[in-house]
Amino acid sequence: MSYQAPIRDLAFCLDHIIGANRLAETELFADATEETRAAILDEAGKLASSVLAPTNRNGDLTPARLENGVVRASPGFADAYRQIAEGGWVGLAAGTEHGGMGLPLTLGTAVGEMFASANLGLSLCPLLSQGQIEALEAHASDEIKALYLPKLISGEWTGTMNLTEPQAGSDVGALASQAKPNGDGTYAVSGQKIYISWGDHDIAENVCHLVLARLPDAAPGTRGLSLFLVPKFIPDESGAPGVANALKVVSLEHKMGLHGSPTAVMSFEGATGWIVGPEAGGMAAMFTMMNNARLGVGVEGLGIAEAACQKALGYAMERVQGKTADGSKTIIGHADVRRMLLRMRSLTDAARAICLDTALSLDMAKAADGAEGKAWKARGAFLTPIAKAFGTDVGNEVAYLGVQVHGGMGFIEEAGAAQYSRDVRVTAIYEGTNGVQAMDLIGRKLGDGGAAARALMEEIRAAGAGASGDLAPLGEQLAIAADALEAATDWMLAAEPNDRAAGAVDYLRAWALLLGGAYLLRGAGVEGPEAARRAGLARYYFGRELVLVAGLAEAATEGAADIYALDAEALA
Amino acid sequence: MSYQAPIRDLAFCLDHIIGANRLAETELFADATEETRAAILDEAGKLASSVLAPTNRNGDLTPARLENGVVRASPGFADAYRQIAEGGWVGLAAGTEHGGMGLPLTLGTAVGEMFASANLGLSLCPLLSQGQIEALEAHASDEIKALYLPKLISGEWTGTMNLTEPQAGSDVGALASQAKPNGDGTYAVSGQKIYISWGDHDIAENVCHLVLARLPDAAPGTRGLSLFLVPKFIPDESGAPGVANALKVVSLEHKMGLHGSPTAVMSFEGATGWIVGPEAGGMAAMFTMMNNARLGVGVEGLGIAEAACQKALGYAMERVQGKTADGSKTIIGHADVRRMLLRMRSLTDAARAICLDTALSLDMAKAADGAEGKAWKARGAFLTPIAKAFGTDVGNEVAYLGVQVHGGMGFIEEAGAAQYSRDVRVTAIYEGTNGVQAMDLIGRKLGDGGAAARALMEEIRAAGAGASGDLAPLGEQLAIAADALEAATDWMLAAEPNDRAAGAVDYLRAWALLLGGAYLLRGAGVEGPEAARRAGLARYYFGRELVLVAGLAEAATEGAADIYALDAEALA
Repeated sequence: MSYQAPIRDLAFCLDHIIGANRLAETELFADATEETRAAILDEAGKLASSVLAPTNRNGDLTPARLENGVVRASPGFADAYRQIAEGGWVGLAAGTEHGGMGLPLTLGTAVGEMFASANLGLSLCPLLSQGQIEALEAHASDEIKALYLPKLISGEWTGTMNLTEPQAGSDVGALASQAKPNGDGTYAVSGQKIYISWGDHDIAENVCHLVLARLPDAAPGTRGLSLFLVPKFIPDESGAPGVANALKVVSLEHKMGLHGSPTAVMSFEGATGWIVGPEAGGMAAMFTMMNNARLGVGVEGLGIAEAACQKALGYAMERVQGKTADGSKTIIGHADVRRMLLRMRSLTDAARAICLDTALSLDMAKAADGAEGKAWKARGAFLTPIAKAFGTDVGNEVAYLGVQVHGGMGFIEEAGAAQYSRDVRVTAIYEGTNGVQAMDLIGRKLGDGGAAARALMEEIRAAGAGASGDLAPLGEQLAIAADALEAATDWMLAAEPNDRAAGAVDYLRAWALLLGGAYLLRGAGVEGPEAARRAGLARYYFGRELVLVAGLAEAATEGAADIYALDAEALA
Repeated sequence: MSYQAPIRDLAFCLDHIIGANRLAETELFADATEETRAAILDEAGKLASSVLAPTNRNGDLTPARLENGVVRASPGFADAYRQIAEGGWVGLAAGTEHGGMGLPLTLGTAVGEMFASANLGLSLCPLLSQGQIEALEAHASDEIKALYLPKLISGEWTGTMNLTEPQAGSDVGALASQAKPNGDGTYAVSGQKIYISWGDHDIAENVCHLVLARLPDAAPGTRGLSLFLVPKFIPDESGAPGVANALKVVSLEHKMGLHGSPTAVMSFEGATGWIVGPEAGGMAAMFTMMNNARLGVGVEGLGIAEAACQKALGYAMERVQGKTADGSKTIIGHADVRRMLLRMRSLTDAARAICLDTALSLDMAKAADGAEGKAWKARGAFLTPIAKAFGTDVGNEVAYLGVQVHGGMGFIEEAGAAQYSRDVRVTAIYEGTNGVQAMDLIGRKLGDGGAAARALMEEIRAAGAGASGDLAPLGEQLAIAADALEAATDWMLAAEPNDRAAGAVDYLRAWALLLGGAYLLRGAGVEGPEAARRAGLARYYFGRELVLVAGLAEAATEGAADIYALDAEALA
């Protein structure tokens, strides 16, 4: 079965679960009406299903390759990318002054999910451009904005993020790349960067690198980092790509998956760059971009989860094997196959609601003023690491189950289930590993004394209290799980930093499962044609997934002592 | 870090956790003394570390390939296999009459773990021969035994299992391959078989296929299946490989991993075969082989888990990144890295004890008489699906975490962590998917009215009650988890078949985690140089893994109603 954009589910989640209509009630996003949202989903869905998805396996079978210093993209990618660019999709959430659509990130997130489902490797290219657009909008000079934003927004040029160096991954402060003033307002940027997605390619006419580097005599650590825009071809006076800059692709990585996305080792050799933001303001500028990029990566996981769900369901509805308990002709009648499919679907739905609600919070933080805006901002900040880690964990778990539903065929590449599993693996690692996300949650995000956590917990309790009729028992169950997580939160707020760190991953997972329960329950309470389906999914989820929250909350509050009791050799 | 055979841990588990010494107290396995066990572990460990492990990546980078109808193995495999054969390792557990060592399967399991860690793809080849040896020993005529067993045991010839057909995977009864009597005592076997590991190769001089097929007018379903031995080359009068049989390799599969193990589509075209066991006795004969093969596959998962643990620990002790909480120079000082390593190590240790104890039960069932033998047999039968499913689930989970510990490098194939993750994936699928294992547990294995379950539960409770001093609280925790699983077991015994099926996977997992707790606690109580290390591992495990048993037991007893409430379309 080929990928079908889940328009109905996306619209339901937007309209009924996260209440996206409040966006249209703001001045900033007044255009984002239900009709506009539907039209956008429909158009993007068509592009994803009929243009992007058919190129997905090309990327896996014919990886991008480095030829004479230039990266050649996989077959079909150039044309598919052109259609993304021409549809205006790169600039969906970009400001209108330079050609963007000015629509909310919430919609961009829904579109991003569909593109990721259809062809994750290719979708990274415009996703990185979007991050760059955001960083330039927020921090670049007017001159740079005028020159670069129209090109990036139209998709004529693409963007990359250059952070990691061999010795500096999660520890960004260890970066060693240098930038020296050239005396003419530009800088000479030098250093080696690794893991640069779409660091070079032949599907657009220029590649614009945002590079973190250190000015001479900069402070050590992250405080001494500045951000530079370093184009592959330096724009000439007309703004067209001119002379080649002093940078090159050293090699492409041989990866477990995502073969369609070239992952470059880049060497900057005194390349001409322009500073973005103030000197030593690199981290602040990078964070603008990284915050939304984290959500974007969560959505990558979600996209693969949705695609894997569809493929597994398609297989389960076709494959005949054994006598089923309910008389179905195909394996969907077997209890354990159903259990897997329900697990896949309900976790995917939970991850979708978390990702879209995170986006909504970030949009509302921009659109609302004063205390309301601040509250939305804190909510978005709290949800972001959850969206990233849970979205990508779910992507991995659902893709794993997708292989399992296929049985022996799942291990055979021809079936396509294995590619999802391989492609999605890195999403739990890059843009801050999921462990780093959990540290952010128990560190910075509980750093407000737990205010954001408590506000979200109140929303969850309200969802539970609002459940009536047949759903009332689920509401009670949600309240019990909320009690467990609330106790864990109190513990976290009182504990020493490293005791918190030792429980961070389990704590994040418990939040995600509880939030998922609240969203599923809310969806189940919406009257209409979806009610029975939504109630069925919620019942499954509450019986088999939400029950794990108590154990996770217990594990999360074990502290660090048992983790540090043994020396390294004892772990061998 | 390259793989180092975990001799110390294997010996500890054998000697102190599962009490392997009782084997040496039997007549059958009187040779399996502590000294012999140590010598075997040492020799096999050397072979695994220094001969097999260095060829592991060859298999991934240069897969076996089909050339002019013949399969060529990966570079270095022929020599490595020759050393396995010459060391007598294929016949470790085979009877002495035809050249085997006659040692217990328990030791074979320990050796199998090391071979799987070192090169899983290659290790499948002798593993399949071992299954065939077992089936022939139990069911073949004396003539066939005399001709084939010495060749298989010496490793000169290798064996395969030919069950699956495109329409018949988990549903073995749907097999369509045919066998017609030739009138001279032989049969003409025809049909297509898929997923045949090591179905052909150039590392030994003959390949002996065991093929399930139907005689004319055979009953439908599994009752009509007979088993045939079909050699690639028909032995001539001197017993040497003679004329080529009427069979061929149609193609090799392009798989997610295990590239070093050729997975063939085989076509039998009136090939000459000899019946093994009585007509229509195919399933019984196959089950002899499959029971131990299931344990063998669990051990494959265990082997990859151990290898992934070692690789991740090596990386964590080398990689410098960020300021750690305990002042360690490398990332092993970060709480979440430690958490992952402890999770990996403790799950691996739990899986090892379960696999070795399963093997011990199967050995004791052979070595002991009367009621004692019967009890061991029931114990082994109960543990087998747990060993298969948990061993391979742990293999997958630990390999996943191994990639995660490596951060970005984990996704790069050069690091080797990704290969473990890809290679181990199929172990959760073949030899009966882990869902099928769980069905076996809640079906056949609880079919004795719960006697085997209760006996095992008593052992677990004894392990808890035996914990004293600092370990006493862990003993209490074990008892609480045992209560939860006991209640789930009572529920299972009373429930309708499909309600049981709907909770089978969670039920099996709960058993495995509880058993793991009992083994870890037992190990922690052994006085000596290992005591502190074992206690540390147990404390971690009880705090973070065993706490999930209650939730799993709850999920396991939800019944099938919520699983079947939605029709297929509603899962889309």
